[in-house]
Amino acid sequence: MHFTHFTSEQRLDDGIVEREFTLGEIPGTLWTPESAAPAPLILMAHNNGLPKAEPRLVARARLTAARGYAVATIDAAGCGERPRSAADEQVRADLRRAMQAGEPVDEIFESMIGPLVEGAVPEWRAALDALLALPEIGGPVGYSGWTALGIRLAVTEPRIEAAGFFAGGYVPLAQREEARQVTIPLLMLLQWDDEGNPRQRALDLFDTFGAKEKTLHANLGGHTGTPRFELDDANRFYDRHLKP
Amino acid sequence: MHFTHFTSEQRLDDGIVEREFTLGEIPGTLWTPESAAPAPLILMAHNNGLPKAEPRLVARARLTAARGYAVATIDAAGCGERPRSAADEQVRADLRRAMQAGEPVDEIFESMIGPLVEGAVPEWRAALDALLALPEIGGPVGYSGWTALGIRLAVTEPRIEAAGFFAGGYVPLAQREEARQVTIPLLMLLQWDDEGNPRQRALDLFDTFGAKEKTLHANLGGHTGTPRFELDDANRFYDRHLKP
Repeated sequence: MHFTHFTSEQRLDDGIVEREFTLGEIPGTLWTPESAAPAPLILMAHNNGLPKAEPRLVARARLTAARGYAVATIDAAGCGERPRSAADEQVRADLRRAMQAGEPVDEIFESMIGPLVEGAVPEWRAALDALLALPEIGGPVGYSGWTALGIRLAVTEPRIEAAGFFAGGYVPLAQREEARQVTIPLLMLLQWDDEGNPRQRALDLFDTFGAKEKTLHANLGGHTGTPRFELDDANRFYDRHLKP
Repeated sequence: MHFTHFTSEQRLDDGIVEREFTLGEIPGTLWTPESAAPAPLILMAHNNGLPKAEPRLVARARLTAARGYAVATIDAAGCGERPRSAADEQVRADLRRAMQAGEPVDEIFESMIGPLVEGAVPEWRAALDALLALPEIGGPVGYSGWTALGIRLAVTEPRIEAAGFFAGGYVPLAQREEARQVTIPLLMLLQWDDEGNPRQRALDLFDTFGAKEKTLHANLGGHTGTPRFELDDANRFYDRHLKP
């Protein structure tokens, strides 16, 4: 087992500690709240392509930590600070070209995201082991963000007790199928006019989930237009399931 | 103008006053919170067929009043305590028979709900006039409940500033069309497996609304299965739009 190796620490105004860490070769960030008791943990996975330092993600993590959660994120292979292979670069270039040309992207997408999800799962499970070994983190554990990875983790990792998913339009076929095995409580967030995530597929995915408690929140607007109040709603969802 | 004529008063544990009133021949109930300042008002319209004394509606009204809102409801013609004509009884019997036989109900539904909505609008506007004349009610005004009536009111009554709609599967054609003229902030609540409200129609209706701020909340389960936390969510929606 790898342990989190902290490389920097910043104390924020509201008592939150923001620490960069590495776990083997994987870079991550951990936000912990000012709290006497070990905090519940939220794994905040960002979608392929975004770095973990993306300001919207950082703002979201800080606000969630301010509510009493430890929040952790790591970069996926080829994302953020992690090196990309020539093959990574090629498939990304293919995807951009196909999207610009208005061609179908399903096949390229599948060949890119399918392996990315498969590769990310053991990394997130290793991160979970390492984070739960820290005295300031107690559990229970929730998940937030990248839908495809969240489905895979929810099916393979019993320590995750509730999940918030965002933008479920493009999800690899394997995860669309195993969505019916996801039985933990879910909150799915959908931007009604998300350019990159076909609405009907997201609605079909919501329908597929096997969870008895599943809630869909949809708002007008594009991918980055999620209203601020949805962050509060998500935190209340976690409060219901992760706080005693 | 008619004035509210109070016929009974009950003081509840949490300082809320629950009063029955009549407005001409229309029976209504008004819940007002313990408050020094005039309260904002929510018109809570229940769907055709339910009496205003229905326990789920009353519970909802009391909790909303406990949050600082005046809440008012009236019975629609032929509903609750109000007399039904022979024609009313006939169309309801036709509807029940068609539903049990699994026949299409659109035409019967249209002939029943269309006129009911048209008739209810002037009654709710009269109620609004009378309620806003009370010193304990100040405004602004929100709407909650029956989708078809809410669309018609949102289009014709500029004093309504935010609306929460429930179960938009069966809505008369006229209101499905004028939905694009509804521009106030909306929260639409959808039960994913609502027996009596086709899901796709509700989603289409959400898509049609002309509002720039519109949010859809969908939960697993049938018509009466709305989770308790949705009431809190609705109240936070009203707080954002009706409280300074």
